[in-house]
Amino acid sequence: MSAPQPISLADKLAGISDHWNPRIVAGYNGNELRLVKLAGDFTWHSHPDTDELFLVLKGQMRILFRDGVAELGEGDLLVVPRGVEHCPQADAECHALLIDREGEPNTGDTPSHRTRTTLERA
Amino acid sequence: MSAPQPISLADKLAGISDHWNPRIVAGYNGNELRLVKLAGDFTWHSHPDTDELFLVLKGQMRILFRDGVAELGEGDLLVVPRGVEHCPQADAECHALLIDREGEPNTGDTPSHRTRTTLERA
Repeated sequence: MSAPQPISLADKLAGISDHWNPRIVAGYNGNELRLVKLAGDFTWHSHPDTDELFLVLKGQMRILFRDGVAELGEGDLLVVPRGVEHCPQADAECHALLIDREGEPNTGDTPSHRTRTTLERA
Repeated sequence: MSAPQPISLADKLAGISDHWNPRIVAGYNGNELRLVKLAGDFTWHSHPDTDELFLVLKGQMRILFRDGVAELGEGDLLVVPRGVEHCPQADAECHALLIDREGEPNTGDTPSHRTRTTLERA
């Protein structure tokens, strides 16, 4: 049987023990679905050529924008439009599903100590 | 303040009372995030020009393929590759987040009594 099979996000998350290191779980129309555990501060950046989707699976996080802030809880979804500067934060560990264009660096146009040049598959 | 704000999937789902009628909740890179409540049988179809993502938010569903079947529970994700025939089913009401290319009919290349020509926004 070669039918596509489901991916359990819980199982994949169980295999992730570090923070700010997204793992690729699937591809969709040239984009990557990525699972990440967040805690603490990320760095300011933007993605000039791709929107970026955040869906919080567990916990809470915050996305700072130059003109405001968005507070996300479990089951909240936010799309950061391409080119919009943002900075994710989480006071305590938070689990999120991200979607980015294939190969897009996690820190977009602004390399930092958080940059992961090559993402692993979950 | 014009910063992007989160969308609560639970709040949007609370406003949906019918089945097999996806509502658009957000856009991402030319694709649409859609919320849908499923119950019973859909119809066989494929999407020749777009992958289709299913993420189960509540309940259970099944996707029939010509060469097998996938059973999805809460937190399970599956990408149906473009061109692959499939038929979703749910024995009891199930809530799912879908991603399809903008404007893609819910029944893809095979119009049926389930076809929704214009999707509403949630």
